[in-house]
Amino acid sequence: MATSRDSVIPQAERMFEGGTHKLDVWTIFTPANVPPDCINLGQGFMNWAPADWIRKAAHKAMDDDIMVNHYAHPRGRPRLVKAISDVYSPTFPNLEGRKLNPEEIVVTAGANGGIYSALTAHLEPGDEVVLIEPFFDQYFATIAFQGGKPVYVPLHPPKEGGGKSSGADWTLNLDELEAAFTPKTKAIIINTPHNPVGKVFTKEELEGIAKICIKHNVLVIADEVYDCMIYDGKSHFHIASLPGMWERTLSVFSGGKSFAATGWRVGWLIGPQPLVSATLAAQSRIVFCTNGPMQEATAIALEGAAEHKFFETQTAEYQERRDILCSYFDQLGLPYTLPEGSYFVLVDMSRLKIPEDYPIPETCKGRGKDFAKCWWMANEIKVVSIPPSEFYCEDHVAIGENFARFAFCKDPELLHAAGKRLLQLKPYLQ
Amino acid sequence: MATSRDSVIPQAERMFEGGTHKLDVWTIFTPANVPPDCINLGQGFMNWAPADWIRKAAHKAMDDDIMVNHYAHPRGRPRLVKAISDVYSPTFPNLEGRKLNPEEIVVTAGANGGIYSALTAHLEPGDEVVLIEPFFDQYFATIAFQGGKPVYVPLHPPKEGGGKSSGADWTLNLDELEAAFTPKTKAIIINTPHNPVGKVFTKEELEGIAKICIKHNVLVIADEVYDCMIYDGKSHFHIASLPGMWERTLSVFSGGKSFAATGWRVGWLIGPQPLVSATLAAQSRIVFCTNGPMQEATAIALEGAAEHKFFETQTAEYQERRDILCSYFDQLGLPYTLPEGSYFVLVDMSRLKIPEDYPIPETCKGRGKDFAKCWWMANEIKVVSIPPSEFYCEDHVAIGENFARFAFCKDPELLHAAGKRLLQLKPYLQ
Repeated sequence: MATSRDSVIPQAERMFEGGTHKLDVWTIFTPANVPPDCINLGQGFMNWAPADWIRKAAHKAMDDDIMVNHYAHPRGRPRLVKAISDVYSPTFPNLEGRKLNPEEIVVTAGANGGIYSALTAHLEPGDEVVLIEPFFDQYFATIAFQGGKPVYVPLHPPKEGGGKSSGADWTLNLDELEAAFTPKTKAIIINTPHNPVGKVFTKEELEGIAKICIKHNVLVIADEVYDCMIYDGKSHFHIASLPGMWERTLSVFSGGKSFAATGWRVGWLIGPQPLVSATLAAQSRIVFCTNGPMQEATAIALEGAAEHKFFETQTAEYQERRDILCSYFDQLGLPYTLPEGSYFVLVDMSRLKIPEDYPIPETCKGRGKDFAKCWWMANEIKVVSIPPSEFYCEDHVAIGENFARFAFCKDPELLHAAGKRLLQLKPYLQ
Repeated sequence: MATSRDSVIPQAERMFEGGTHKLDVWTIFTPANVPPDCINLGQGFMNWAPADWIRKAAHKAMDDDIMVNHYAHPRGRPRLVKAISDVYSPTFPNLEGRKLNPEEIVVTAGANGGIYSALTAHLEPGDEVVLIEPFFDQYFATIAFQGGKPVYVPLHPPKEGGGKSSGADWTLNLDELEAAFTPKTKAIIINTPHNPVGKVFTKEELEGIAKICIKHNVLVIADEVYDCMIYDGKSHFHIASLPGMWERTLSVFSGGKSFAATGWRVGWLIGPQPLVSATLAAQSRIVFCTNGPMQEATAIALEGAAEHKFFETQTAEYQERRDILCSYFDQLGLPYTLPEGSYFVLVDMSRLKIPEDYPIPETCKGRGKDFAKCWWMANEIKVVSIPPSEFYCEDHVAIGENFARFAFCKDPELLHAAGKRLLQLKPYLQ
């Protein structure tokens, strides 16, 4: 009894190569695909190691406690769950001074694994999820894997000018947002501080969004992985803290981003027990649990952060690095959005004209103009950036393709070196 | 425009609490739910730490190489991918001496994360997956999350006797296996060495299975995570090595099991490039990548295993531990299957009579008799085991409920202590 199927056809391969979404931007611009002497301001990882005191204490924990090396509880190691509760409880005013319970926390395989588990737990085929453009491209794939449907609402960029704009100049039209909701809308993903815009949504902006979320009774995934990178004295606000929002919101955080350890793959979600329990149930089937040694390291980091003035120092350093990189865009006269948060700067590259016959790989063809421009910059200027049209749906590529995203989570020396290379763009700007 | 939906209903919570599958066995028998003075032979983790030389070298790698702490390539860190190729290539005779290419390997967030990614990549809603009972319960959930349908074929247990049986006495009826295949069958999962039976499938048995897989043109997930625990001079055989099988098989391995580090969450899949690529594409969206420090530790472990005679020593130790635990079942006269591989022993507990009015929690009610017996043993004998009816579909609970699964990945002292407690079962055996 042979079947009618000719071959084992992988769903994922179809999805990424012939399907609605093309080869992902991270693979196209991965270090192996660009000249080896490039300076990589593409993917957002730091070029420094996690702090000595954290690494040393983590080594000791692995050596002293056998169980650090064995299965963690799927919710997370109790020491880390407690550290998260201690550090994060005071940042949620809606808790009115009480501590987060363990049942309101789940440690995840990176923030990425956390968002995946949350959406696996909560989406059913046909459910719609509202995404605000530009959006971190992982969201799209995760929704698609659940048989869900993303619905897009753009942030409107600032009018082009000669100089700086700010995150506040990227605006969400609440009427447009509300128009995206249908009876099938199950969830919305809100990312603040925002990648790649660097916008930190104000309390007032979040109130406007919250009102719509409550009215339409949807789940909110609040992707707040850059909560520890906010500049110019501004502050972060959890949308989950607003009235009527706690019970519908899962807030997502990243140990890797907070402590310069993007490869440790430790994130966490905070939210009401029913939403967290469902996420935990899904996660326990997806990865079972998160790696123990790096959970212990992250617990040690959270416990010691205040004593080491870790975040004060790190924030000041990031702000300095942001300003170093942006000084070169100032010299070039390129318009950019000065990020209020995150470690990315979005630069308006409309004026960059690259040779029309410049060869670009097949993977960059038929996509936004920014793919060709970023490919050219990587190969000719030797600075890697990311084309942000990847973070827009096909209908809105025309908004994203004017920009390039540069990461400044690099030390000052490297940023100056990159900046000096970027000055070579001058003759190509019109 | 309010929706008709009253609340945010989590899919996973429904699935696990009110749905087809009840609360998972690992949560019911988790240390926090049983008396604290229990000896835990339930979940399969070791009560010793990973080897000193591995841990020390891993600490050094984290300190010396910044990039160990940052995003790994989604396929895995190149050093680990090379170590896997070096160690595993010679074990696949079908390769005829060539080395596995990087494109034939993907490092995963534990074997668990690997199986999840593989099934996410390859299953579509409605696809059927054949499972051989007893089966590791994660398979069920993973298939269900993809909208797939598990189809069950039991291993037939040995006829009850007074003493030992072997894995070879658990038999698969190939006619029954073939009858489970339909035009909707997309995949089969073959687990060897087998958890919980301890059976190591022979080349001849695998040939019989392979013939059916080829005839029906299905994907094969070969879960071989206990490949480093095989006893009595027996040897492991990869089903992927058989003619016509390489191109349809993903073989799954576990660094945590091989190197006594179950909490490191490093596994890997080996297979042909198209199947691996699809799995990688899925994984890069599910967890993006696997944690770097424990990948480096695992690479160091694989590189140094031969020099340290690691597996020779470990296998001898496991065999000794198996025999210690089994000696107590001999003393009790309880029939059991002497495991040829894995670190579990399945004991026939049909003769155990527990008090009929013994209180058991709601989570154990309405399930196989083994749930009540294992609960009673944990609370009265103070030894935790796992009820294997969890590893059978509802129709076949009557096969599984006669047994209990005991893990022997514990040091000899603890196994003797557990064995002495188990001798107290004597008056309860009829």
